[in-house]
Amino acid sequence: MIVVKKFGGSSVGDAERMKRVARRIAETYDKGNQVAVVVSAMGDTTDDLIALSKQVTSNPSAREMDMLLSTGEQVSIAMLAMTLAEMGYKAISLTGAQAGYHTDGTYSKSKIVSIDNSRVKQELDNGNIVIVAGFQGIDESGEINTLGRGGSDTSAVALAIALNADVCEIYTDVDGVYTADPRVVEKAWKMPEVSYDEMLEMAAMGALVLQPRSVELAKMYGLKLHVRSSFNHNEGTIVKEEALMNNDLEKDLMVCGVAHDMNVLKATIFGVPDKPGVASSIFGKLADEKVNVDMIIQSGSRDAKQDISFTCGRDELNKVDRILKEVVADLPADNYTLVDNFAKVSVVGAGMISHPGVAATMFKTLSDINANIGMIATSEIKISCIVDEAKVKEAVVALHTAFGLDR
Amino acid sequence: MIVVKKFGGSSVGDAERMKRVARRIAETYDKGNQVAVVVSAMGDTTDDLIALSKQVTSNPSAREMDMLLSTGEQVSIAMLAMTLAEMGYKAISLTGAQAGYHTDGTYSKSKIVSIDNSRVKQELDNGNIVIVAGFQGIDESGEINTLGRGGSDTSAVALAIALNADVCEIYTDVDGVYTADPRVVEKAWKMPEVSYDEMLEMAAMGALVLQPRSVELAKMYGLKLHVRSSFNHNEGTIVKEEALMNNDLEKDLMVCGVAHDMNVLKATIFGVPDKPGVASSIFGKLADEKVNVDMIIQSGSRDAKQDISFTCGRDELNKVDRILKEVVADLPADNYTLVDNFAKVSVVGAGMISHPGVAATMFKTLSDINANIGMIATSEIKISCIVDEAKVKEAVVALHTAFGLDR
Repeated sequence: MIVVKKFGGSSVGDAERMKRVARRIAETYDKGNQVAVVVSAMGDTTDDLIALSKQVTSNPSAREMDMLLSTGEQVSIAMLAMTLAEMGYKAISLTGAQAGYHTDGTYSKSKIVSIDNSRVKQELDNGNIVIVAGFQGIDESGEINTLGRGGSDTSAVALAIALNADVCEIYTDVDGVYTADPRVVEKAWKMPEVSYDEMLEMAAMGALVLQPRSVELAKMYGLKLHVRSSFNHNEGTIVKEEALMNNDLEKDLMVCGVAHDMNVLKATIFGVPDKPGVASSIFGKLADEKVNVDMIIQSGSRDAKQDISFTCGRDELNKVDRILKEVVADLPADNYTLVDNFAKVSVVGAGMISHPGVAATMFKTLSDINANIGMIATSEIKISCIVDEAKVKEAVVALHTAFGLDR
Repeated sequence: MIVVKKFGGSSVGDAERMKRVARRIAETYDKGNQVAVVVSAMGDTTDDLIALSKQVTSNPSAREMDMLLSTGEQVSIAMLAMTLAEMGYKAISLTGAQAGYHTDGTYSKSKIVSIDNSRVKQELDNGNIVIVAGFQGIDESGEINTLGRGGSDTSAVALAIALNADVCEIYTDVDGVYTADPRVVEKAWKMPEVSYDEMLEMAAMGALVLQPRSVELAKMYGLKLHVRSSFNHNEGTIVKEEALMNNDLEKDLMVCGVAHDMNVLKATIFGVPDKPGVASSIFGKLADEKVNVDMIIQSGSRDAKQDISFTCGRDELNKVDRILKEVVADLPADNYTLVDNFAKVSVVGAGMISHPGVAATMFKTLSDINANIGMIATSEIKISCIVDEAKVKEAVVALHTAFGLDR
């Protein structure tokens, strides 16, 4: 088998953890598999590097940040290759560039355009365990691009696809995918299997076990993901095609999980002229600047004007502030607000399609705990509501109970 | 003018020093010069990375060490480019690979084969201050090679040559090149000028202001070096062709400086068969393993056997131990010893050629302070003696006086 394993920063946070990860890799190799490993930067390295940059600038260029941050993974791969060599295994580290990751030239939020797998294949065929730097690649000019936070998941999935791997194991500090955050909901439990779409909604909704782009990519190529803990040998959660799932029991559940996300910035533009092209102009500008907009609400028209609200990550605050200042002046609109004390709670489940009334149950549950709903967004397998940050944990517990998920 | 500046690790050891270095660079840029800068890793970064590696392995592969250590300079260049940008200057960082450094494929002690200057030239022509990672390059397979300790000097000189720069300024934590180490000899003074050859001998002898390879390279292309402090604006020491020097007074001095080096490992192989090819076999093996051998002495033959001694850096101890074990078994020879409590003291001066008796004065001076001479090596402009480590500082002071260098 060809196995791709991905270890996050906390799994390789220090020398002892690095050794444990190396033993874990060696076990798989010893069973006769070809093993390629994608690692993130050790522990808090990325945050430390960001803090270092803040000592000299408040507004670093994205290019120089990528130059800086990509060193974190490079340290990890060298350390892990050394650790394996010390244990007597043939191992070789490869930077994103060396492993053939071609990215699109966008700094700090790049996408992988293609992977030239020849070097990795050659090293695997030479009997090496191949250790690849996640989160990074180079564009056609040789510039270093990073994929943005969590990009190592996507690195691993993309590599697994490029190698036609049998499975991509994502090692994290949790056992697998839970019906809700077990730190919040005592009665949450680990799902043995989950579909790509459900995982995607869970991930996008803040259950930060997997980066959404990585799940999308796995879905597109039908790559089986195994989300599991780097601290024990428990079976984790398999993410795969819904059609291949054998948990009939759970399919009868309307909702398979409750997710929440504290990283919500809510922006509202008031008094937007009610004419064609306005929304496209606002969200076009946000897209040009690579702001990931999540929910969008447009109020009904009033005096030929309307209000538009959207949410995005709180780390976009400065950028969104600047963009909306321009937007309000250009349209023109009346004014805008940015609020960052909201959070999002979502219920997810493929069974939702065949069970009406999920939304009604959700709204009643939130109302019962006096959680005011700020925004609502729905898809075929998910309903999300924006509520006060202070209410969100209570909301998750109540929804877990309301949808019969407690164990 | 095109100016290349090189800043060592201590010059960019923290954010404050980084800012000072950035101001220094900006001053030169503001005068209308094109400025390319080579930097080393910040402060103790390289040592910290080595210590990190020791947590997982006692015997790291050279390839993985290069992968690990090259991140140090990458952090520096990104930080320095950000610092300059924060001050309002256009600056761009380039890794060794991006700056076009092609190395020979040797890990940890690579040589620069060529520099493709096109990217650096292009960025300079775009008005950028170009910040280049010292100490590193890539070979033709895209593997990262480092140049070994002090390699950043060579990076800077090679870049200055590739750009046809007017001067290469090497910034250090000392004011320039002194007649002896001022921490050891109170009456030592800074030389305004020194020839390449003298500098070369001083450097090779342990006056670690400049890496010898960088001086050799500068000499070969007639590149003027300016060794100066990053902590003040004093004129430092200019290193250039002897023919161009205007210090007639000093040329009358037999000796221009006294250097010493504590990093001496002395190896002796006893009872080596006295037949052709033996020395070549021993030193061929050492060269294959990239051991930089310094002094070599072969004793006269005795019973068709002889003793061979040589010196090298103490960091080679493990490697030399292993090689000599093989050598003694293969030749066969009687046995070998490795001693690391010796040091080297040298007197250097182009004037030596026309002044006989320098060696005699040196030996008498050492004898007067009861320093036993373990080995002697001479060149046209230098005499070196191995003495007890404990005696070396006294020897430097005495020689500085004996050759009329005290001020």
